[in-house]
Order: sequence, then structure tokens, then C-alpha cells
Amino acid sequence: MLRVADLLNTGRMTDPIRPTDDEARALAQSLLSSARFTALAVQDPETGAPYVSRIALSAGQGAAVSLVSALAYHTQALRADPACALLVGEPGQKGDALAHPRLTVQARAAFIPRPSDQHEKMAAQYLRDHPKAKLYLSLGDFSFVRFEPVRAFLNGGFGRAFHLRAGDLIPAAGA
Amino acid sequence: MLRVADLLNTGRMTDPIRPTDDEARALAQSLLSSARFTALAVQDPETGAPYVSRIALSAGQGAAVSLVSALAYHTQALRADPACALLVGEPGQKGDALAHPRLTVQARAAFIPRPSDQHEKMAAQYLRDHPKAKLYLSLGDFSFVRFEPVRAFLNGGFGRAFHLRAGDLIPAAGA
Repeated sequence: MLRVADLLNTGRMTDPIRPTDDEARALAQSLLSSARFTALAVQDPETGAPYVSRIALSAGQGAAVSLVSALAYHTQALRADPACALLVGEPGQKGDALAHPRLTVQARAAFIPRPSDQHEKMAAQYLRDHPKAKLYLSLGDFSFVRFEPVRAFLNGGFGRAFHLRAGDLIPAAGA
Repeated sequence: MLRVADLLNTGRMTDPIRPTDDEARALAQSLLSSARFTALAVQDPETGAPYVSRIALSAGQGAAVSLVSALAYHTQALRADPACALLVGEPGQKGDALAHPRLTVQARAAFIPRPSDQHEKMAAQYLRDHPKAKLYLSLGDFSFVRFEPVRAFLNGGFGRAFHLRAGDLIPAAGA
């Protein structure tokens, strides 16, 4: 029976991990900056098992942020262990979902004190992407969390995978 | 400043965790059985940190399965630790993504031996949902993994959250 390596040898499929180039960086940055929500993977604080939920997202210049409720399970998880991962790049309802590019970002969550100047600055930016967040911002249980990238994995479709460093997610100055 | 509890006390918001009823079970079952892909959260075998990727999915009668490559990082992760979590229920491109119902399923991954009768049976079912998987099925690196639910969390939109047991994901006989 054929194996993936056989396809590689016949040239029908390229090495699944490609050298990271500017095109890959630009695609990763675009997927992250255009995301308005994400799958957030955390460690379940009760069991240590993986847990994943959907949260809103706003990202600019490589720093993704979300406004989270202290009552939410993912928030309790991040308070217990800030290691997490995001998945952005949403396929449409039709067609092959696995042909659609997506980006995994492994990150560490940093909570923003409230009140603080940083909170106010983030609120202004966040409301541009999420106007309905005004209600949540008015509640003291909600605060911002910033996701500091550790490393990332870009899957641009079958046979187009890249490993990225945190710096690859930040647009070059002047770009 | 107002807090979420204040809204609860004034009746403007209900308890975020509701008692699980048949409507919640039906919605959870529908989200799972109609999913053709999922965010899969695993523990990174290199670092122990959370990792999340997108995989194809086919689910019927509460047992979700995927066809995965031995070369994929999530497969290596599941081989090292079968504890994982799935997120299904995709929002459209427009509107408020967090108003769209979604289901988190914490599960344990069980790999299906190949060759085996079970593999052949799963292949027939899987191809109905994923006709293009025929190519992958012809490669010896790919095998089926079944996700055995442990517990689940349904978020039917703001203020509509439910905790579910594994049995809640299985349609009642005759339903």
C-alpha cells in the first residue's frame, strides 16, 4: 500500500513543512488580523485535559486581544495556567474546509489590569471591531486578555504547512 | 460599576448554566452530527502546552470519527495522550459569531486498527460525508480515530449555557 512518503518521492506531493517565506508570513498576519473570533484551547483547570471554546478576538500588529468574563470557564483556566492556543482562519459553509488556510498560534495569556490606561486604550480599539462589546465593557466582571504569541503553525491547504516564530506574526515596519 | 450578578438579580439575565433539557440535548446532537470539521484541542507532546488544529469530522449516533495522518502533529499528540476536546457549530461569515450555538466535547481518542473490519465499516460511512477522503484512504499513513465523549458544554448563545454528560450526545432510541 502506498504511503505519503511514496507520493513525496514521485513528486506528486511536496514536503509538508515548507521554509517560511514572506508570502507565508503575510498570509499568517492576514489570517490573524482579520479574525473576529477564534477557537481558544486551554488546559481544563479541573482535570488537566484539553478544553476548547469560542471567544471574540481583535488583533492588530501581532497582538490579539479578547474581552473575557471572569465567570467564563476559559477565563478561570487562563487564570490558572496562561498557556493556550488559538485557531483562526474560518472556512466558508461550502467547499473543502481543509483546503482553507488556517493558523494555529500557541500563546501565553496576559490579563490587563482594570482600571488602567492600557484597558482604556484597548477598549477604544476593541469597540471598532466589536461595537456590541459596549455592554460587556460596562460590567466589572469583564477584562481584557492579551495573547502573547510563542510560536505558530500555518496550514495553507494540503501540502502547504509552515512553522512560524512569534516575530513572523508582526508586520514589518513600513509594510 | 455593575457586575454580571447585578444583572442576574434584576432579572435582565438568567443564570448562565441552565438545567439540561431535551431541547439542549437535541441542539447538541444536531451540532455534532452536522459537523464536517472541528477544532481539535490536544496537549502539545513537546511542551505540554495546549495546541489546536482543524480536522475533518464525521459523526453519527454520538460517535465522531476523523481520518488522520500519522505525519500530522495532532496525531502524534493523540498517540502520546488521548485526552482532547472538539469545538463544533460554525457561525456564518456575518453577524455576531458569539450568538451562534456551539458545542465543546471533551473526549478521549481511540485509534482504529488497520486493516480491520471496523476500519472498513468506518470508511464506508466516512466517504459519504467526505468523498474526497478516498485519496487519503488509499494511503497507509492514514487511519481512523474515534472520539469517545467524556463530557460536553453547550453554549446556545448569551445566557444559554448547559453542561452535558456523554449520554446526552446520543439520540434516544426511536427518536
